[in-house]
Amino acid sequence: MTERTIFWDYESKSISLIDQTLLPAEYRIKSCSTVEELAEAIRRLEVRGAPALGVAGGLGIALSAAISESSDASGIIADLRRDALILKATRPTAVNLAWGIERVLKAAEACSTPEEIQKAALSEAEAVGDEDAAMCREIGKNGAELLPDKCTVLTHCNAGALACSEWGTALGVIRSACKAGKEVSVISCETRPLNQGSRLTAFELSRDNIPVKTITDSSAAMLMRKGVIDAVIVGADRITDDAVFNKIGTYMHAVCAKHHNIPFYVAAPYSTFDSELSEADVEIELRARDELAFCGDKMLMPDGVEALNYAFDPTPMNLITAVITEKGVLKPPFERTDLLPGRRDI
Amino acid sequence: MTERTIFWDYESKSISLIDQTLLPAEYRIKSCSTVEELAEAIRRLEVRGAPALGVAGGLGIALSAAISESSDASGIIADLRRDALILKATRPTAVNLAWGIERVLKAAEACSTPEEIQKAALSEAEAVGDEDAAMCREIGKNGAELLPDKCTVLTHCNAGALACSEWGTALGVIRSACKAGKEVSVISCETRPLNQGSRLTAFELSRDNIPVKTITDSSAAMLMRKGVIDAVIVGADRITDDAVFNKIGTYMHAVCAKHHNIPFYVAAPYSTFDSELSEADVEIELRARDELAFCGDKMLMPDGVEALNYAFDPTPMNLITAVITEKGVLKPPFERTDLLPGRRDI
Repeated sequence: MTERTIFWDYESKSISLIDQTLLPAEYRIKSCSTVEELAEAIRRLEVRGAPALGVAGGLGIALSAAISESSDASGIIADLRRDALILKATRPTAVNLAWGIERVLKAAEACSTPEEIQKAALSEAEAVGDEDAAMCREIGKNGAELLPDKCTVLTHCNAGALACSEWGTALGVIRSACKAGKEVSVISCETRPLNQGSRLTAFELSRDNIPVKTITDSSAAMLMRKGVIDAVIVGADRITDDAVFNKIGTYMHAVCAKHHNIPFYVAAPYSTFDSELSEADVEIELRARDELAFCGDKMLMPDGVEALNYAFDPTPMNLITAVITEKGVLKPPFERTDLLPGRRDI
Repeated sequence: MTERTIFWDYESKSISLIDQTLLPAEYRIKSCSTVEELAEAIRRLEVRGAPALGVAGGLGIALSAAISESSDASGIIADLRRDALILKATRPTAVNLAWGIERVLKAAEACSTPEEIQKAALSEAEAVGDEDAAMCREIGKNGAELLPDKCTVLTHCNAGALACSEWGTALGVIRSACKAGKEVSVISCETRPLNQGSRLTAFELSRDNIPVKTITDSSAAMLMRKGVIDAVIVGADRITDDAVFNKIGTYMHAVCAKHHNIPFYVAAPYSTFDSELSEADVEIELRARDELAFCGDKMLMPDGVEALNYAFDPTPMNLITAVITEKGVLKPPFERTDLLPGRRDI
């Protein structure tokens, strides 16, 4: 997918986004022409993924500026601030969403006429998307060099274009390797309980004609033992000094990859590092029982039985072969000073 | 569950069974008063699990004898043989089903009057169930001794009463430990793609008031690392000289248990050993794509993407702490001569 997953439509002055809740049954571009429509799309997870939410937040402020009925600059800025609060409240823990909103709001606040505000807000929002796209390409380029010319890569969840503005992080590495002429096949773990692997990763790779097969999460170890998997690549939500936090199941794959001597790569923006924290400081989100208890109209668990539905797990650094960032590839002992300019090839 | 999961109803002269396809939404005892009704129940997986199918097959022949309209012994035997073929064809690869059918057919063939045939067939069919129940109790007793007085046990799929005539193998060990006064909590992996763990294991344990929580299969490793899991117990479909074949995901749990130094137990009848074969001789069943592509009315995979849906995986013996059988507990190097009479406590 080289097209943007979320972008500004100049003709209709609205935000267009791929409605991810309809995937994989239906591919539909949804148009949001009011801030409330966008807020609802974010709430309903029609757009999800940290980088994509940053773009959504930024474009939301640009939309607010474009449709504001205020006639002077201070009125418009007041509208933007009101809408910034509405949008931030949709997913209060999404750091990137708030960051994208604030960045564009700040650019608007520096302007003195309504026209300047509208122009600056849209330009800044589009810069958020452009920078994310460029960063994913750099991650992809850096990671592609690590893959053999012909290989099968296992991935978990969706660290793909659908989570970003385009290209993706873990899937960006796969796309870049394919673009560089390597023959890459992908095994996509379905990623219970929300099946982002079978719904989204399988969708976006097959759309790009990259060979992809889906498995249950618990089949990965058996395929590793059969010698089918050459590398594992996953994304990351947060990287502390001692662990990578990512979708539940990542740790299981890392343990099994180590057991089978298969390289385990994490692809993520440099900004994912959070050196202030260690693993013990991070609380793992326990999500709703219903995600395990029901699937569509099907009841999968008896009433009264509890589910332990952890959203993420920590993988200690000693199980990780390398972290692939836009600034370069970091290998043990993961000293980030190694990524200073001029020291990129370590 | 100390009640039978499948049994003969003397009043209505029919076979009663728990319809497992309705679980966990509904607990309903289904009555089969014709061989065709039973065949359909087996085909629809309303009754499943190797030992339970042995009982089903045996009771099917007893049912055939009970409702036969033939007036002499040879006519009834001809009816039984016809119905044996019908029942065997429902699941041609289910070894226990055919074994139960043949055993009861043989008992019937040794009789010379219609009354004797009916009586012998029912008596033999009930013996199949009784022997399975007694065997599960022995497995349970032998395994219970291995568990600490207070512990949390992880299990995968359903090696429980619902797969047997009662009590269960892996879950039989847990039941016996509870009966012996041990405090056992259970973590039940949902077991994708058919969710026998969340649908059946969680159902039958909570019905017995044994504390049980459900997790996604991929959460197990993280819980092991947190120190929450004291032991893993699973069933087995087949044990060759070098590997245990069981539900897909078993191998993953075994690798992760080894990594965390957690004992990994297999509970299964002695007859599960198949010393004629090695791992390489066993072909792993690849099941239908639809099991991953749909859940209830929900589409989980885009059209055109293939699923690698292996039903089982082999776990090499070096990852297994002990095999718990009705004849005793077998530890490495898993020499079965150690289970000869008089050498049960090894």
